[in-house]
Amino acid sequence: MESLKKKIRQDAIIRDGNIIQVDNFLNHQLDITLLQAIGQEIYTRFHELNINKIVTIEASGIAIAAITAQYFDNIPVVFAKKKALNQDNTCYQANVFSYTKKTSYQATISKRFLNENDRILIVDDFMANGEAMRGLISLVEQANATICGCCSIIEKGFQKGGDLLRSDGYPYQSLAIIDKIDENEVTFR
Amino acid sequence: MESLKKKIRQDAIIRDGNIIQVDNFLNHQLDITLLQAIGQEIYTRFHELNINKIVTIEASGIAIAAITAQYFDNIPVVFAKKKALNQDNTCYQANVFSYTKKTSYQATISKRFLNENDRILIVDDFMANGEAMRGLISLVEQANATICGCCSIIEKGFQKGGDLLRSDGYPYQSLAIIDKIDENEVTFR
Repeated sequence: MESLKKKIRQDAIIRDGNIIQVDNFLNHQLDITLLQAIGQEIYTRFHELNINKIVTIEASGIAIAAITAQYFDNIPVVFAKKKALNQDNTCYQANVFSYTKKTSYQATISKRFLNENDRILIVDDFMANGEAMRGLISLVEQANATICGCCSIIEKGFQKGGDLLRSDGYPYQSLAIIDKIDENEVTFR
Repeated sequence: MESLKKKIRQDAIIRDGNIIQVDNFLNHQLDITLLQAIGQEIYTRFHELNINKIVTIEASGIAIAAITAQYFDNIPVVFAKKKALNQDNTCYQANVFSYTKKTSYQATISKRFLNENDRILIVDDFMANGEAMRGLISLVEQANATICGCCSIIEKGFQKGGDLLRSDGYPYQSLAIIDKIDENEVTFR
């Protein structure tokens, strides 16, 4: 997605340790026009799959999912919540290790909002090692719902989460794949 | 806002202890058509104030703010993050006591995303004792930005957060005020 790559080149901040900071347009301050373009792009890629619900995870996935749902005729969005510990059997639960924070949390979705008739598109902001996406996939699979597509906005291609999902046969795509981060430059695949 | 009140009457779940659960349309599963109507209503109420940015707090405020921003000509959204502890002087910080969780957290916004020229609309999902809204107001005031409006979607009128903000002179409104929750019925002001 060229407009997204352009935005990353112009506005992302590169930090030590292969960290790319996009909090000025994607996950702290939100560029709504860019989110609309992202939503349209996701619709173009996945609209033929009879998707009836979008699943994401708090917090950064929510704006992407809500804006995107508009292009899919306002289908509902369900966002997984992050909990330190949850013994609640009314929820699907998946353990997720956060690479950034070096801790684990439970991603949970109420059983009322996912069922075996659902045809799901999963969206999230970042793909690195794939922990959050794997957690979301697990929640959808626990409900015996169909995973029609998985889409992240920015994929760090030099980490292996995205490629492993593809080789495992999941219908995974991303809108921009970064293969290398140098001091002042981002190289896309 | 009549369509919101109708939705609350039809779909909200009433629980012991004056708890009204709206996770099937507002803060876990999201009804995008309702969010669009909410965004239009907020625009109708606040559009004459030259607002240039919407501020909210993760997680439940994000979808409301992102959808609403579209009606304000795609102005940026900034969402405050919740942190257990933060000694980062690059952020504005406000201590917020969570009534639901009986603990405090720091609400933070990077200083890069708020400044004295900003004309801010603050939005959030729920108003009870007003802790989160007060925290957001503090963040905006620390930046010397102008608070043009504060809007929550559902106000619990039997708690005093909303009325205290009004009597303190803040430009606070809500889209539905619940004055009483009985066993099976919600009474609006």
